[in-house]
Amino acid sequence: MSGNTFGTLFRVTTFGESHGPGLGGVVDGCPSNIPLDEATIQKELDRRKPGQGYGATARKEDDRVVIQSGVFEGKTTGTPIGFSIANSDHRSADYGKIKNTFRPGHGDYTYQAKYGIRDYRGGGRSSGRETVSRVAAGAIAQEYLYTLGIKVLAYTVELGGIQATDFVPTGMLDRPFFAADPAVVPRWEQRIDEVRKQQDTLGGIVKITAQGLPPGLGEPVFDKLDARLAAAVMSVGAVKGVSLGAGFEAARLLGSENNDPLTPQGFASNNAGGILAGISSGQEIIIHAAIKPIPSIAKEQQTIDVHGKACTISIGGRHDICAIPRVVPVLKAMVCLTLADMLLIQKTRA
Amino acid sequence: MSGNTFGTLFRVTTFGESHGPGLGGVVDGCPSNIPLDEATIQKELDRRKPGQGYGATARKEDDRVVIQSGVFEGKTTGTPIGFSIANSDHRSADYGKIKNTFRPGHGDYTYQAKYGIRDYRGGGRSSGRETVSRVAAGAIAQEYLYTLGIKVLAYTVELGGIQATDFVPTGMLDRPFFAADPAVVPRWEQRIDEVRKQQDTLGGIVKITAQGLPPGLGEPVFDKLDARLAAAVMSVGAVKGVSLGAGFEAARLLGSENNDPLTPQGFASNNAGGILAGISSGQEIIIHAAIKPIPSIAKEQQTIDVHGKACTISIGGRHDICAIPRVVPVLKAMVCLTLADMLLIQKTRA
Amino acid sequence: MSGNTFGTLFRVTTFGESHGPGLGGVVDGCPSNIPLDEATIQKELDRRKPGQGYGATARKEDDRVVIQSGVFEGKTTGTPIGFSIANSDHRSADYGKIKNTFRPGHGDYTYQAKYGIRDYRGGGRSSGRETVSRVAAGAIAQEYLYTLGIKVLAYTVELGGIQATDFVPTGMLDRPFFAADPAVVPRWEQRIDEVRKQQDTLGGIVKITAQGLPPGLGEPVFDKLDARLAAAVMSVGAVKGVSLGAGFEAARLLGSENNDPLTPQGFASNNAGGILAGISSGQEIIIHAAIKPIPSIAKEQQTIDVHGKACTISIGGRHDICAIPRVVPVLKAMVCLTLADMLLIQKTRA
Amino acid sequence: MSGNTFGTLFRVTTFGESHGPGLGGVVDGCPSNIPLDEATIQKELDRRKPGQGYGATARKEDDRVVIQSGVFEGKTTGTPIGFSIANSDHRSADYGKIKNTFRPGHGDYTYQAKYGIRDYRGGGRSSGRETVSRVAAGAIAQEYLYTLGIKVLAYTVELGGIQATDFVPTGMLDRPFFAADPAVVPRWEQRIDEVRKQQDTLGGIVKITAQGLPPGLGEPVFDKLDARLAAAVMSVGAVKGVSLGAGFEAARLLGSENNDPLTPQGFASNNAGGILAGISSGQEIIIHAAIKPIPSIAKEQQTIDVHGKACTISIGGRHDICAIPRVVPVLKAMVCLTLADMLLIQKTRA
Repeated sequence: MSGNTFGTLFRVTTFGESHGPGLGGVVDGCPSNIPLDEATIQKELDRRKPGQGYGATARKEDDRVVIQSGVFEGKTTGTPIGFSIANSDHRSADYGKIKNTFRPGHGDYTYQAKYGIRDYRGGGRSSGRETVSRVAAGAIAQEYLYTLGIKVLAYTVELGGIQATDFVPTGMLDRPFFAADPAVVPRWEQRIDEVRKQQDTLGGIVKITAQGLPPGLGEPVFDKLDARLAAAVMSVGAVKGVSLGAGFEAARLLGSENNDPLTPQGFASNNAGGILAGISSGQEIIIHAAIKPIPSIAKEQQTIDVHGKACTISIGGRHDICAIPRVVPVLKAMVCLTLADMLLIQKTRA
Repeated sequence: MSGNTFGTLFRVTTFGESHGPGLGGVVDGCPSNIPLDEATIQKELDRRKPGQGYGATARKEDDRVVIQSGVFEGKTTGTPIGFSIANSDHRSADYGKIKNTFRPGHGDYTYQAKYGIRDYRGGGRSSGRETVSRVAAGAIAQEYLYTLGIKVLAYTVELGGIQATDFVPTGMLDRPFFAADPAVVPRWEQRIDEVRKQQDTLGGIVKITAQGLPPGLGEPVFDKLDARLAAAVMSVGAVKGVSLGAGFEAARLLGSENNDPLTPQGFASNNAGGILAGISSGQEIIIHAAIKPIPSIAKEQQTIDVHGKACTISIGGRHDICAIPRVVPVLKAMVCLTLADMLLIQKTRA
Repeated sequence: MSGNTFGTLFRVTTFGESHGPGLGGVVDGCPSNIPLDEATIQKELDRRKPGQGYGATARKEDDRVVIQSGVFEGKTTGTPIGFSIANSDHRSADYGKIKNTFRPGHGDYTYQAKYGIRDYRGGGRSSGRETVSRVAAGAIAQEYLYTLGIKVLAYTVELGGIQATDFVPTGMLDRPFFAADPAVVPRWEQRIDEVRKQQDTLGGIVKITAQGLPPGLGEPVFDKLDARLAAAVMSVGAVKGVSLGAGFEAARLLGSENNDPLTPQGFASNNAGGILAGISSGQEIIIHAAIKPIPSIAKEQQTIDVHGKACTISIGGRHDICAIPRVVPVLKAMVCLTLADMLLIQKTRA
Repeated sequence: MSGNTFGTLFRVTTFGESHGPGLGGVVDGCPSNIPLDEATIQKELDRRKPGQGYGATARKEDDRVVIQSGVFEGKTTGTPIGFSIANSDHRSADYGKIKNTFRPGHGDYTYQAKYGIRDYRGGGRSSGRETVSRVAAGAIAQEYLYTLGIKVLAYTVELGGIQATDFVPTGMLDRPFFAADPAVVPRWEQRIDEVRKQQDTLGGIVKITAQGLPPGLGEPVFDKLDARLAAAVMSVGAVKGVSLGAGFEAARLLGSENNDPLTPQGFASNNAGGILAGISSGQEIIIHAAIKPIPSIAKEQQTIDVHGKACTISIGGRHDICAIPRVVPVLKAMVCLTLADMLLIQKTRA
């Protein structure tokens, strides 16, 4: 384990920071003969970019993906798929002031402690910018899932403490915040405006689902499907909690309430979130992820400098008020990558 | 990934089912010259055994661990530590009736779907019995952590919807349910009694903490410390949710509330749960795990048989009402194993 | 990587030393529904035991394998297969004298340097005794290969510098040294006798072949089939060289001599040893392994003690004159394990 | 295992084919604060390029490496080091004729069998062109080794059956073929000329050594240092055999001849090639690799087309007569990568 590779058979290895020539990655193990082109990946990258509705910054990140290898005449060849995205917007001037100060809630202090050196420009590798490579790789995984009739969705069910009605989120891709329900959008926009005026930030809850999965995915006892999904989701920067199916509510149910009865027509409920004993049951996978508020706030905060001396910091500039909606395509990508990997492993089991 | 190995450098591989000659595992990568004997492991196994207070079964599991290799004159040698625990209580008669029926909430259906064959005796590998190997391995990891001054605790903060006061849980090892607070125990015992009479079961919430950790553990971007811990905790049978620090509550806080200010004396709060940008900060690690109610209930349930025909099932026998307290030492073990692994990896980073 | 696990999908993790309660391992990832019982594994173990013809010691190692888990009603279940072999012949008295001396050609010095501690009884983990677990695991892999019509053979083609005629080695399993050709056996026996009188030891060359393999196995560019096989073979104690097909002779051929022409009936020769560009071609796999002479010799040798002081050592006792024939079943096992793993991986590629 | 990642802690993942926009890779796990710049990597790439003396093609490959990430102010930061090399010389016209024919000795047939699709332009991923990424990554590993005083050398000791005197190869970097001995160069050049006229190709033997290694590297029993090195070397395209120390000759020595006596001043000989029981002894590591003749020959050969019909092929164009000297820097790179990885692992052992 070196930290920047995800997966066992369907694997992605990523690189890149907020500054420097570019970002990218290598998808290795994607089955051959899967249709793939740059436009398919680009579509997912475009969903991640800033300016996607309220709460997002005005920063320009014109992320163009280039496929470097592994695709021939519109199909994957089974060899590693290299992809790259140039860093076009270097913004060095904005970040000079944080060279000597540890920002609360950021990785400045811990990266320095871990490596004894820190690329302070824009957070370096700890910046959310690394997720561009996750989204690109996830788009490749998604193409593989499509060939099997599997569909992964991600959308926002709570923002700033305000819950959306969570029904089948038709049309959520065209909606600000990838909101589960259009009716909640004006309330979320209003809440964002309030918090912006307070120079503060907000969190929320994202739901990710997968439909069309066969039963049998997951590798007990340590690489159960829920364990893999939890790691995938929790590896995304702002996530502080993850649950399957009924989640923390399951801790308050009786066994007779929580168990999903089996019937000749299928399961009668889905408190399990599509996973039993760590193995997919064929029901819909249901995941919730808790997203913390963005730590970069304009409001003045107490902190210390690199010499350990107390000081204050106000983080201005072009920052988002909420990681949502940018984190939504990232979470979807991580679930796609996990499922692609588990599907390949299951091919070898029986 | 084959599912039964956990960790990269400090690794455990386990085997064994509820039936058959025995269970055990191999701990590979444990540093040499760590003091270790069977009594140390046995002490942790004894904490996991049934009959540990209310809600537990009267089943006899006299689990005696034998160290097969890797220890010489009371110290680890750096070679693999094989350990075994014989299955003394086979109980075959009890389980024959579930041969042809899928129990709701259990892995019967999904194991059959995954492997096309199923050891129906006692759930086979999907039985909670496999966790005996986790506890033994975790006890070895814990010995390594002790040499570094690191201490991991696990205790119960909620049971059947009734919360304990969560202060420093001194003495919880001697208490039923490993309860955070002695005052809550009578209320939990009463709740267990009620639910037993209803032929039903209960869940709860377990908190796991780690103190004494250096800053720097965790391998961004995919093997962040929180991602590894989430996978470790979620890999345990009854767990449906996991969170770090403020967890799902963080989704409702403002940035200014959630950020932990840095001061010359250390962090002023710990909403992060000891992890920033996926790397330990040196603060206490705080994890919560949601435990679902045990799916084996005496109350009659709807289900199907192996031919897909509707039927009912009542699961009698010597079953627990609540996975707590048995899951508590298992969760502690998984956190110990994760931290030991991340500590070794961090030795190679700078 | 922790050193005692082999393989990615079809994996074995082993433990055990020359002394201590026992040895064993865990085979994880074996497909379900493969017929398996203890007798099948025992048969391979019996081929490895001492007393198999000339050059072998009279030591008694009555190695009885016990399957601990993963097999139900005569078939694998897909869950980990734990197996164990008790150490019945402890021989502690024989080894006390090497406590303070580093034996030339052995791992005494390097184990001490690596781990700062050393189980000096019989070499501990560096003893050839660990290979009992390899043979047991290889027997399980072989059962899987049989279901696909794949057959792996290993036999001796040179001993003490005397080459056997290497034709199809029918009947070699019943022959001393697993000799390729019965005609060479008396000459090898005579050479062994001479060298025994000189208080010295001998090496040789073992050939391993695999027939019935489909084309397509191997994972370029780093896990090519030949790279995986080389690692597998070289991981066995006494091996100092490994080659594929024409091997070192290929370095002296012209391209037109070394290339294997393709014809509508198949390849016209097999200098490649069944592997092209790291991928199996469907031809027979041909491997040669160079086995060094056993380092334990009765003749007096120069060495140092644990304090670095010069001294001499004569290693008496019940030692083999040649690692052949004991290493032959071990090499076969390692090739079986490698092929089983690569077959599973290839299931996921297209 | 997905095939395009090498190493456990010091890891490289590569991508790229003979055609397409470019090649590159990601080095993950390189310790932080190692001095690194593009010029250092470029120097090694320049050693690999064609036109390095006799036997090499006139093809222009102006390979310029760009570091994309992981280096800040001239030092590694501990985050993944992305690097890229653009493909500037596409040569598509040259390769169209092999679209429908399998070249003997090449991966055309096996790639098609494995993946069901094949990028026929220049061999795609099976082309030696992928080694440019190995050399770049190896240069990074070498920088890490330098900080520890470890030096890896690779040079040619035999070509076309003509052996060089193998003494300390001072100055071999400035010499055609990276020849061990300048005196042999004219004879090798003459042999190349003869073989070129015959429209044929040649192989040879490369020696790789490592000096300054501490004792203790290598992870028994499966990831012994010699097993890892064998896999690393054998993963390079043209290699058909690999040996450590006395290698295949060890099979013909007596134990008393082959054992390296220990003295207070160190080992008295080095038949072991610096490795005992799979662990480095502190002596020089000695590896030999057998290089087959290049399979692309101008001479007419028998083969089949993609429909299985017999045909002939003459491979003209700008091809090398011998993989040496181009493979020499590649082998050095693979050894550097292996040693860097094993050094990091050993940091965690005691």
